[in-house]
Amino acid sequence: MASYQVGDSLPELRVTPDAGLPRRYAEASGDMNPIHIDEEFAKSVGLPGCILHGLYSMAQVARAHTEAAGDPLALKRLAVQFRGMGFPEQEIRVTATVKAVEGDRVVTATEAAQGDNRIIRNGEAEFTA
Amino acid sequence: MASYQVGDSLPELRVTPDAGLPRRYAEASGDMNPIHIDEEFAKSVGLPGCILHGLYSMAQVARAHTEAAGDPLALKRLAVQFRGMGFPEQEIRVTATVKAVEGDRVVTATEAAQGDNRIIRNGEAEFTA
Repeated sequence: MASYQVGDSLPELRVTPDAGLPRRYAEASGDMNPIHIDEEFAKSVGLPGCILHGLYSMAQVARAHTEAAGDPLALKRLAVQFRGMGFPEQEIRVTATVKAVEGDRVVTATEAAQGDNRIIRNGEAEFTA
Repeated sequence: MASYQVGDSLPELRVTPDAGLPRRYAEASGDMNPIHIDEEFAKSVGLPGCILHGLYSMAQVARAHTEAAGDPLALKRLAVQFRGMGFPEQEIRVTATVKAVEGDRVVTATEAAQGDNRIIRNGEAEFTA
């Protein structure tokens, strides 16, 4: 059992999705929107290129917590705001800081960023530890 | 532009993940925990078999909203509670009911279930319409 105190940081998770990731995530998640998998289409609607699925980035936020907890079933609640577009071939960094502890429940403030581009903000996660 | 009123239901999303889905989602999301991809391991820890990733089910909740909005960038906020384990080869049904409308922002109460097994509960989503 891990022991957490308010103010603790969870281990940072860093992951760099490769160029083919959005297509694989599209096929696995069922979200085949062309802005994720069709470079020409993405550019035609004003994007610099294919963008990551927001839920892929959210999955990394979840993973930072389940890995910290050491239990894939530990995550009980997750809330995020989607505030920026993420791109393949750029490192995603997930950070989380403990903001409350009640018994075996730990609540964090969490976000995901690519450089200065904070793609997921105001996240809140609750897990058992 | 869609027009929503409090009490409206979004189109229901139904999807049945096949037996190979957890492995594909694992590889695409980076969450390779064996409870999702190793039947023997899953059984050894008391599960009836491999379970779905919670974030896969959450992705279906997100998709119900982006498809209703007709815009993959419409989803601004998503919060869920993970309350049951989902399984491949069983239909997931995502339902959402509008509980607030403010300008172009629509807020729903949403959940995902497999039969009577409500795997994602107390969901709240906000999207632009």
